Amino acid sequence: MIGEFELIARITEGLEVNSDVVLSVGDDSAVVALQGDTVVCTDILIENVHFKRQWSPAHAVGRKAVAVNVSDLEAMGCRPSSVVVALAFPKDLNPQWVVDFEQGVRDECVAAGVSLIGGDMSRSEHIVACVTAIGDTMGRTPVTRGGAQPGDSVAIRGNLGLSGAGLVVLQRGFGSPKDAVAEHLTPSVQYGQGLVAADAGATAMIDVSDGLLADLGHVSEQSGVRIDVDTSLLKVPDPVARVAAATGKPAIGFLLAGGEDHSLAATFPAGTDLPDGWVRIGEVREGEGVTVDGEAYDGERGWDHFG
Amino acid sequence: MIGEFELIARITEGLEVNSDVVLSVGDDSAVVALQGDTVVCTDILIENVHFKRQWSPAHAVGRKAVAVNVSDLEAMGCRPSSVVVALAFPKDLNPQWVVDFEQGVRDECVAAGVSLIGGDMSRSEHIVACVTAIGDTMGRTPVTRGGAQPGDSVAIRGNLGLSGAGLVVLQRGFGSPKDAVAEHLTPSVQYGQGLVAADAGATAMIDVSDGLLADLGHVSEQSGVRIDVDTSLLKVPDPVARVAAATGKPAIGFLLAGGEDHSLAATFPAGTDLPDGWVRIGEVREGEGVTVDGEAYDGERGWDHFG
Repeated sequence: MIGEFELIARITEGLEVNSDVVLSVGDDSAVVALQGDTVVCTDILIENVHFKRQWSPAHAVGRKAVAVNVSDLEAMGCRPSSVVVALAFPKDLNPQWVVDFEQGVRDECVAAGVSLIGGDMSRSEHIVACVTAIGDTMGRTPVTRGGAQPGDSVAIRGNLGLSGAGLVVLQRGFGSPKDAVAEHLTPSVQYGQGLVAADAGATAMIDVSDGLLADLGHVSEQSGVRIDVDTSLLKVPDPVARVAAATGKPAIGFLLAGGEDHSLAATFPAGTDLPDGWVRIGEVREGEGVTVDGEAYDGERGWDHFG
Repeated sequence: MIGEFELIARITEGLEVNSDVVLSVGDDSAVVALQGDTVVCTDILIENVHFKRQWSPAHAVGRKAVAVNVSDLEAMGCRPSSVVVALAFPKDLNPQWVVDFEQGVRDECVAAGVSLIGGDMSRSEHIVACVTAIGDTMGRTPVTRGGAQPGDSVAIRGNLGLSGAGLVVLQRGFGSPKDAVAEHLTPSVQYGQGLVAADAGATAMIDVSDGLLADLGHVSEQSGVRIDVDTSLLKVPDPVARVAAATGKPAIGFLLAGGEDHSLAATFPAGTDLPDGWVRIGEVREGEGVTVDGEAYDGERGWDHFG
């Protein structure tokens, strides 16, 4: 059996970090030199809840663990800096799984422009990965969920519905459309777009993880406004249309409530020239709650881990 | 069944935070205003690995989850600021367990002087708690494991052996000596002593979690020195002596390799007036490795989760 310290030595070998890292793995804590206030978020991935080993290669799980966390930093309009990764796994797990997982962590860190600076490792019955990401405000005011104003445009950057459609495909034992499955296994997070949205004057922002309507509901509640989604502005991706056709589910349901999209939804003052790639999908109004085409929506609203 | 959002609302109700917290729970990330560089560490607690429900009340698990993390910050000679807590638990767990766990988290945060600023919640088959703690250097140089110099004194602040003795007691189905058991369930961490040691000129420091010799081994390796522990300077606590007598194990073994002490071990330049409560236990010499009374130690060295 490979020991804890040997395994840690193997997976941290040749680790490169960005210039803001003062002290990386190998001590009781890591140290980073940040600009402005420190932004922090944490997300836990549990085997058979957030991923299944038969669906997700270890590399994809490692990538996803980083991606979903950094996406929460992006949603504050801040600069992601670093992650720490706690991993627990069964004694009889092939050490190669851990090595591949950590390679996925490293690869996604490179994609996100962040450094892996520390972690923890333990035994457990099922695989657990808990990632905490930290970033900095660089002196700006963070973009919360609470700043949306009546009249603001609601816009999105990233995919909607692909991940949810991919999950349905996997649950039915299929492996395609591949674009939907790949998006479910590792969401393509909009790295750098949090800052772009903040620069463009975003008044509120959120990482779309529980489903578009559920997450806009958080913005609506914390901003004290109504948010109306205009479905004529939502483009159904081709793989989602195919999954919808094959399963008899309405395609729009995947976009509105699919979950695990990890796109960014933000509100911008009326008349804002939206940054490249941001798509207007609705408007902020006076009132409360989230409406679809001006009316209450009667489909599923999103994902509650305990529902 | 109580929902995720309702449960989060219940456990974050009336949450108080320190003045360095800019944005607490309820958004995609939390924001804190730190002085100097940001220090970060993460630790994962797994049911049946780090705690058992029949031994540890939920409140004690919550306290321990915070304590073991903040202890890692203390060991850098920095100021602990905040924690984020990810918790996963079985669907059929009594929600009161979660409420009690979170109360333990809150109570230990108060003891440690840190704020609970965020978290995540998920379902899992066994309880998992992953805490990440952040602190700041306040412009100082962090105290690493790598600065010990030949001639330095080795000193400790906190308990040695009590937690390991408490574990043995619990494993044998007993509940006393209570002081040992209590120390195993929730270590009494030396809050504030990391900064005190740094102020006194500590050249290296470590949180004693894997066992004294194992952790001094990390200091020895990273500092490129030998560390000699003088057992005549180690005082065997009474509960440890009683457990040793009852089990036929050598008492000194609990002190040298018990594990989960979460005391602080530090090295100080020769002649340093040790701060209050710090006890000299040995000396740094030229060479490598850790010796006990000048000789190799042939007992257990400490805890490897995968050994």
